[in-house]
Amino acid sequence: MNYRLIIKTTGTVLLVEAAALLPSIVTALLFRESPVPLLLAMAIMLAAGYPASRAKPKTSHFFARDGYVTVFLIWLVLSAFGALPLFFTGLVPSYVDCFFETVSGFTTTGATILTDIEAVPKGVLFWRSFTHFIGGMGILVLANALLPSSKDRQQHLMRAEIPGPEVGKLVPRLSDSSKILYAIYTGIMLLEVVCLLFTGMDLFNAFTTAFSTAGTGGFSAMNASIAAFNNPAAEVIIGIFMMFFGINFTVYFLILTKKFRAALASEELKFYLCVIAAVTAMITLNIMHMYPDIWESIRNAFFATSSIITTTGFVTADFDTWPQFSKTLLLLLMFIGASAGSTGGAIKCSRVLMVFKSIVREVRQIIHPNAVFVIRMDGKAVDEKTLRSVMRFFAAYMVITLISTLIICLDNVDLTTAISAVAANIGNVGPGLAAVGPTCNYAFLTWWSKILLSLCMLMGRLEIFPALVFFSPSTWRKN
Amino acid sequence: MNYRLIIKTTGTVLLVEAAALLPSIVTALLFRESPVPLLLAMAIMLAAGYPASRAKPKTSHFFARDGYVTVFLIWLVLSAFGALPLFFTGLVPSYVDCFFETVSGFTTTGATILTDIEAVPKGVLFWRSFTHFIGGMGILVLANALLPSSKDRQQHLMRAEIPGPEVGKLVPRLSDSSKILYAIYTGIMLLEVVCLLFTGMDLFNAFTTAFSTAGTGGFSAMNASIAAFNNPAAEVIIGIFMMFFGINFTVYFLILTKKFRAALASEELKFYLCVIAAVTAMITLNIMHMYPDIWESIRNAFFATSSIITTTGFVTADFDTWPQFSKTLLLLLMFIGASAGSTGGAIKCSRVLMVFKSIVREVRQIIHPNAVFVIRMDGKAVDEKTLRSVMRFFAAYMVITLISTLIICLDNVDLTTAISAVAANIGNVGPGLAAVGPTCNYAFLTWWSKILLSLCMLMGRLEIFPALVFFSPSTWRKN
Repeated sequence: MNYRLIIKTTGTVLLVEAAALLPSIVTALLFRESPVPLLLAMAIMLAAGYPASRAKPKTSHFFARDGYVTVFLIWLVLSAFGALPLFFTGLVPSYVDCFFETVSGFTTTGATILTDIEAVPKGVLFWRSFTHFIGGMGILVLANALLPSSKDRQQHLMRAEIPGPEVGKLVPRLSDSSKILYAIYTGIMLLEVVCLLFTGMDLFNAFTTAFSTAGTGGFSAMNASIAAFNNPAAEVIIGIFMMFFGINFTVYFLILTKKFRAALASEELKFYLCVIAAVTAMITLNIMHMYPDIWESIRNAFFATSSIITTTGFVTADFDTWPQFSKTLLLLLMFIGASAGSTGGAIKCSRVLMVFKSIVREVRQIIHPNAVFVIRMDGKAVDEKTLRSVMRFFAAYMVITLISTLIICLDNVDLTTAISAVAANIGNVGPGLAAVGPTCNYAFLTWWSKILLSLCMLMGRLEIFPALVFFSPSTWRKN
Repeated sequence: MNYRLIIKTTGTVLLVEAAALLPSIVTALLFRESPVPLLLAMAIMLAAGYPASRAKPKTSHFFARDGYVTVFLIWLVLSAFGALPLFFTGLVPSYVDCFFETVSGFTTTGATILTDIEAVPKGVLFWRSFTHFIGGMGILVLANALLPSSKDRQQHLMRAEIPGPEVGKLVPRLSDSSKILYAIYTGIMLLEVVCLLFTGMDLFNAFTTAFSTAGTGGFSAMNASIAAFNNPAAEVIIGIFMMFFGINFTVYFLILTKKFRAALASEELKFYLCVIAAVTAMITLNIMHMYPDIWESIRNAFFATSSIITTTGFVTADFDTWPQFSKTLLLLLMFIGASAGSTGGAIKCSRVLMVFKSIVREVRQIIHPNAVFVIRMDGKAVDEKTLRSVMRFFAAYMVITLISTLIICLDNVDLTTAISAVAANIGNVGPGLAAVGPTCNYAFLTWWSKILLSLCMLMGRLEIFPALVFFSPSTWRKN
């Protein structure tokens, strides 16, 4: 393990995090709030990050293993330091709570322990939503876009941080890819800000909402989430933008480079849009009797579907009061998640598609034992290694979900709360059902449940294996 | 598809089923009950089975696909005709209910729709428990043991009927294997009958209980299941015998042939026993405060653990009143299930072990990308084809569980009821939690929920793929 290089990289990322506090400090000043919590946090990040970033690695060797360990460590460190502004406000006495909130921010989960969000200063709320924006596309992708680095290192880090079964390169140079990704990402986010301003939303809420939408996070600066604005136009706009951010960013790159046919040929995109349409229709039929007219039912059904499948977690209607069928459907969406290469979490549509195709292939293989069946995605054969990884990811995801649910039950919550809390955290969704439903929060859980759920969020965001590599004893054994 | 051979095989099995009614008719006569419902059912089985069994196949070609289709069809037909005695008693007016009860019997699930079991005539109750005994080891294994058949056909049928990732042959000739399996099976069952008689249980209950234990079914002739006997010695004996029937029968064959070292080297056996010990310990600690002394806690914890992991479903204590941790632990056991090659259901310990080993290998492969890791079971390398099948089975099992849970929710039951009903039925366990808990039954569900759960039971017992092959359009397409 190249410890010095890992320390150096972590230190550098801490400096990037310190810089990322600047917009929040400006916000605090604009609202005439005390910037002290933010400045103090920034000072500590600089004090810890600068010496670490000056570490002199003996070699530049950097293997896949180092990549996984670095990414997991960086996300832990990032959250540990990122929790400081909220902690320094004095509003949340428990540091574990602040850590949970910040992990929830960076992993774009949106699960909150705040019982009164609107009591938090605007500068810190801005930071809270901004962590979604940073975490959505990835801090290392950001660092790659900004700072020079070796090709090997970039590749190993990006593979561990970008979600999806295969890392698609847009252009040959990785740092160029990173820049293009961030440009598309920021562009669509700013477009949403403009659209929201047109609906009459104020600038602060337009930005915090857009950050959360872009990262598919779900933190809102309002206690009642999106329902607080009582603004149907904004709800529709946010619903559509959530859907946009759940699409593989390669699709946008293809559109920008005018490869429209290639963009629309994506099987995952079709599957993703079909699932949204089908679930919206089923929920609409199921909740129709609860709302005054069909349009309101459709709007609420679409918003919830888009919010949950993209793992954002914004709320307009309290779906915990919907019939069990709709609630279970949303719970299933928490497992499916958005597209690979998007900012959404969970298992991802392309993996779900591959799992389905693998099952179908097994059946066809039994029917025709001597035929050779190849699994294709977008017309191209998927190699066996990728398929194997997908199946193992799926298995690991389910096993970790089940074991975590069991442990959360020690907190004496009911099964629906336990299973939906774990599904909503490992899937980076945010709100679950029952006691952790859309109008509730995670404050009441014990500290060890919060740490376990923080771990689930990190595992979900980094797609399980970086965490397993980090905690595997053989990673740390000398060869 | 060799339709004539499929019809002939199905007809033959119906004749075997008719013969299997004889002990129940004797029981009815001994208890001076009317044997008419049983005799009528027998007559119908003979009338349908005899002409079918005389079908003259044009060829003897029989492929794996034919095997899967035949097995699924036979289990459907077997249940459809086996439901007649209960239906003819007139106590259960809905035929769907009788079908559910009989599928539950043959698949050794033990989920019941009877609200007053003790009101059913003894002869029919004997048949109800006897279906567990037949279904446990398999009707085709029985047919193989009794009737001559071609080697190819036997192999394809056994592969589809015997649970587990690999069909282990005990001896070169399959019909000899079948005879040995049934001999061991009947031997241990009779040993249990003798033990139960020593605890003071009457002959009728000793036999019905032993049939249910042997098949890991869970039907009891008493409304309160095993708790009705109020007999701690019997509880311990049943608990231990359930555990015995959850062990791979190859282990008993090795013991009989004095290969003790090979018998005890089985990794699956160790895993299975360790899980039982660990879960018993955890539940004991969790429920200690609910019982007057530690021994009663241990006895109840062990009984529930043994009952659920072997997918039997006998009940001594209402575990639905236990703390959520214990309930969730039992729910997880419903997924794990017993050993491959036993009479128990669900995913099976060996598959769970292989899934774990696959995840660990993925992590080790990331840490050492150039090393070659082989997954071993009992010291032997598992080939990639088996591993792939195991992963697809696991995925199919989880996907079908989730989709069925969603559909059951349309019945407006809560999530715990829905998910535990599906887990308990696809896992062939029987009782679930909440509204389908150990003191409840499945009578209140709608007919379509009962049909869906019947399908789940069949899919679970036959390990998913026979059902998927049966329902796949390409199976029925002419080449």
